[in-house]
Amino acid sequence: MNAEQKRGPLVIIGGAEDKKGDCVVLREFVRASGGVKAHIVVMTAATSYPKEVGDEYTLVFERLGAGSVQVVHTESRFDSEREESLGIIKQATGIFFTGGDQLRIVDFIKGTPLDEAIHQRHQMGAVIGGTSAGAAMMPSEMIVGGASVSHPSVDAVRIGPGMGFLPGILVDQHFAQRGRLGRLLAALVQEPADLGLGIDEDTAIIVKDDEFTVVGQGAVTVVDETTSTHNNLEGLLKDEPIALCGVQLHILPHGYRFDLKKRVPLL
Amino acid sequence: MNAEQKRGPLVIIGGAEDKKGDCVVLREFVRASGGVKAHIVVMTAATSYPKEVGDEYTLVFERLGAGSVQVVHTESRFDSEREESLGIIKQATGIFFTGGDQLRIVDFIKGTPLDEAIHQRHQMGAVIGGTSAGAAMMPSEMIVGGASVSHPSVDAVRIGPGMGFLPGILVDQHFAQRGRLGRLLAALVQEPADLGLGIDEDTAIIVKDDEFTVVGQGAVTVVDETTSTHNNLEGLLKDEPIALCGVQLHILPHGYRFDLKKRVPLL
Repeated sequence: MNAEQKRGPLVIIGGAEDKKGDCVVLREFVRASGGVKAHIVVMTAATSYPKEVGDEYTLVFERLGAGSVQVVHTESRFDSEREESLGIIKQATGIFFTGGDQLRIVDFIKGTPLDEAIHQRHQMGAVIGGTSAGAAMMPSEMIVGGASVSHPSVDAVRIGPGMGFLPGILVDQHFAQRGRLGRLLAALVQEPADLGLGIDEDTAIIVKDDEFTVVGQGAVTVVDETTSTHNNLEGLLKDEPIALCGVQLHILPHGYRFDLKKRVPLL
Repeated sequence: MNAEQKRGPLVIIGGAEDKKGDCVVLREFVRASGGVKAHIVVMTAATSYPKEVGDEYTLVFERLGAGSVQVVHTESRFDSEREESLGIIKQATGIFFTGGDQLRIVDFIKGTPLDEAIHQRHQMGAVIGGTSAGAAMMPSEMIVGGASVSHPSVDAVRIGPGMGFLPGILVDQHFAQRGRLGRLLAALVQEPADLGLGIDEDTAIIVKDDEFTVVGQGAVTVVDETTSTHNNLEGLLKDEPIALCGVQLHILPHGYRFDLKKRVPLL
């Protein structure tokens, strides 16, 4: 990589991706990271089981032919200043955030030297991947939690700062499997994000420049709030249902592409 | 009522409506049926517990002040020819279908003299109400069943003939609570219906002429497929995810109104 190289792709996975079979989704992460020449770093900050989860991803990335795989675990902001970790990141062509709790990623890494190193590496072309919690943390504002299968209301969702790899977007995961339309809509009404992306399990978007492509078994639900003509947020109490008119919805399965700037599917 | 009177309202409830407290939703059914002058008939065809369910609704409708409440139970098409039942329907100002299995309603009633009597009474101004299975059966084509919390695929939903009180529409119930967006979208792609209405629990639409008003605790999700620009249904296998672009979505809580003909919220 050289200084002129541009920002790397993002591989954002809705959780529960196949790790035993064809690994359609993880395969794309390894491919984007350079395949047999990939230097992959598994970030286990989100999980309380770093050993098990780290070993699992190391195994699958090695099986898929990655050149090298290393695990960086952080359990504190202090960990995110360790020179050894920074050195590993500086060699990475693909950085993968596992599932767990997205708040742990932000709490332990955001604003630390490790955060800076990862963003710098991304700017130089390295792929940033993440699944579940590792997907949720991608935007500048992230969905921290909230009830699934509920109608949209202010208290259906909690939002906090994310890691800022994909600004202007909100990401929700396990989307169809947990019936999360209500909370994604609630989040969109409260945040100045233009687009909500609901990513199903074993499904991912690969973001390059201003486009993404869908891969995997499920679909990606794109919720475009810029077309909406009305909501009742002003004066709404937190347990009252949100009204929202004229939202546009796209359901995109494997192979479909979407223009994030023009906000249209590419057919 | 006289011969010039027009078609009665529909009160379509997403299931699990309050029967102990203020009964906001059932109250509207009794009010539309004539309040203290209402002659309400509870149709228990859908349920396997007609005695319990019939008693429960009789109690609540009486408590809300209905003039009279009678129960008509049918367990066969033969039951739907009984003169006594036809006589009761002919006096009704409000006919209420309980929850259970929507197929039982269609199997036991559709195409029988009882069906004819109910439709006739509706044309003369009687209210038709229904909750859960009694809501699903309202359209000409109804959602018979299918997986909740799934992405849209052909096998996510089963469709069959409904009772035809609300043509051109598809109704799904327990909508937010069971995460049913995927199956409603799947149904819309396969059926020539223009609009899908996902009605939350303890929530109803009151349809008068070409408008509906939302009442209750949750919201009604309106899915307008006429604005969609693309789907991949042709050549799709039944377990493959459906693509669907440009669908319009409205989330309408209590008090919101919608024009079914122009397909726009009335603000």
